[in-house]
Amino acid sequence: MTAQIITPDAGTVSGASQWLDAIKWDEQGLVPVIAQEAASNEVVMFAWMNRDALALTVQSGEAVYWSRSRKKLWHKGEESGHTQKVIQLRVDCDADVVLLKIEQIGGIACHTGRHSCFFQQLVAKVSLDGAGSPDSSQLEWQAVEPVLKDPQTIYK
Amino acid sequence: MTAQIITPDAGTVSGASQWLDAIKWDEQGLVPVIAQEAASNEVVMFAWMNRDALALTVQSGEAVYWSRSRKKLWHKGEESGHTQKVIQLRVDCDADVVLLKIEQIGGIACHTGRHSCFFQQLVAKVSLDGAGSPDSSQLEWQAVEPVLKDPQTIYK
Repeated sequence: MTAQIITPDAGTVSGASQWLDAIKWDEQGLVPVIAQEAASNEVVMFAWMNRDALALTVQSGEAVYWSRSRKKLWHKGEESGHTQKVIQLRVDCDADVVLLKIEQIGGIACHTGRHSCFFQQLVAKVSLDGAGSPDSSQLEWQAVEPVLKDPQTIYK
Repeated sequence: MTAQIITPDAGTVSGASQWLDAIKWDEQGLVPVIAQEAASNEVVMFAWMNRDALALTVQSGEAVYWSRSRKKLWHKGEESGHTQKVIQLRVDCDADVVLLKIEQIGGIACHTGRHSCFFQQLVAKVSLDGAGSPDSSQLEWQAVEPVLKDPQTIYK
């Protein structure tokens, strides 16, 4: 597990940088971030970054997010070892969403022990037998991806 | 261009549905949505949906977002013809982000006439000549994907 990222004093990490200024930070100073596995193009996670998190991500080469629940910088994998090595950074046309192409260390991005956080798919509860589109009340989210590792063994 | 989607009275479209109730809508009643091209796995767009937008997306089989700037339902492609046919819907572990696997009609998701909205990549302004990681001040966002169609011919 890497430990080179320490929580910075606000502003020390992400001083003057035009590429950081170009981001349209929201009213909380955050930007949504999509983490996509570079090799497979699978979307494995979604999270948020503030200016320091984005600066640290680029500086360290590993994904650092802003945890909205814990209100602190979150070096992804700091507990699990499942860090994300940054391969490429993209920003969208409005410069208000970041796309992070990553290598997922350990192959597990989700705290449930799955490869991707997007493991629940909207499916019809019952077989449709060619009866066309299901009624909305017949739909449900179903977990369709396997747990690769017991979370209890990931987070000791 | 399809026109089967009309703006509903609030609540009429997305009445009682457990799969809609399962979504953790934010304080504005919205959920972030990642649009991913099903065939290539490329992330082409990011937008937001409210409950009616998600219900209409499933009902119609085409992406309907909530435009935060125009404060109304936005049937993607309603002007450009570049609609998004829904192939699959996923939700993440926390049920607060939706992943939409789509077929991008016309091959253009971005209003700039590009395939994807994520066409700007963080690159070093100057060649590094093997000198290691660039200083933050040497980085910039560069457009690295071609414009496939002049936006002026898309939006008449």
